[in-house]
Amino acid sequence: MSISMYSASVPVFTQMLGSLSALLKKAEAHAEQHKIEPSVLLEARLFPTMFPLKRQVQIACDFARGVSARLAGVEVPKSPDTEQTFDELQALITKTLAFIGGLSQKQFDSSASREIVTRPGTPKERRFAGEAYLLSYGLPQFFFHVTTAYALLRHNGVELGKGDYMGTY
Amino acid sequence: MSISMYSASVPVFTQMLGSLSALLKKAEAHAEQHKIEPSVLLEARLFPTMFPLKRQVQIACDFARGVSARLAGVEVPKSPDTEQTFDELQALITKTLAFIGGLSQKQFDSSASREIVTRPGTPKERRFAGEAYLLSYGLPQFFFHVTTAYALLRHNGVELGKGDYMGTY
Repeated sequence: MSISMYSASVPVFTQMLGSLSALLKKAEAHAEQHKIEPSVLLEARLFPTMFPLKRQVQIACDFARGVSARLAGVEVPKSPDTEQTFDELQALITKTLAFIGGLSQKQFDSSASREIVTRPGTPKERRFAGEAYLLSYGLPQFFFHVTTAYALLRHNGVELGKGDYMGTY
Repeated sequence: MSISMYSASVPVFTQMLGSLSALLKKAEAHAEQHKIEPSVLLEARLFPTMFPLKRQVQIACDFARGVSARLAGVEVPKSPDTEQTFDELQALITKTLAFIGGLSQKQFDSSASREIVTRPGTPKERRFAGEAYLLSYGLPQFFFHVTTAYALLRHNGVELGKGDYMGTY
């Protein structure tokens, strides 16, 4: 027995983007309640050389969108990553969910063996079979940025628990 | 085309436990170089109500061991979670890798539909088919604790990059 490439990608991204959206709503409410400028949280970093919250959210969406598109064999939609506010990040998550939600299971049928090339034409170019691309690259990267967003918010005192990270499953 | 439950679990845990081990080696070297008591890092938290580094490592190992064992249909090995030093955490990771490395692909053959019960007999009891248990519960939980360990170390100034988190893949 086995699982489909679709099951191991789109529903996982959907669950976690839903939880990321809920985390950001709680963060926004926390800022309002404690009279914190929203940008203080949006620009918060765990270390000066790490990305701030808003960028963590953008990159999580990038991976959900990019990994799903490449596995489905469709062009990766461009996203300018210009979001600056909680509302704009929520809109990005909504757009990302709509894009991956519009992909069909059938489009993933031959994706386990499809060759995926990341950073093509650069010194960091890397070739994967779709299965390795998802399991050893896409999922670890995606979870990294969702978890880091959670950790950033917890570190800044937003009241969240593991249940908020796990989302609805 | 599809992927096996084994491919979506044991090799993923193995990759990330390898990176966790390497992260901890860099953290230990950093402590020595900067004359930081190792326990300062091992007990570091991102927030008072979050677990410290040593517990993040223990829980990451718990999920790798527990999820793999339940999917393979074997008893989950007990672990007392008493590790207090970098050496003891490295030994725990080595033991965890040896355990999951000893499971055969064949043991995972019927695991996608096998019923898994988490926290049995408690108010938080939950029943999953093996596929959902891995994809919507086990992997998100596992990645959470590996990423939080990384975030904790970065926050404390240990020089790490995304490549250290990704490990060898």
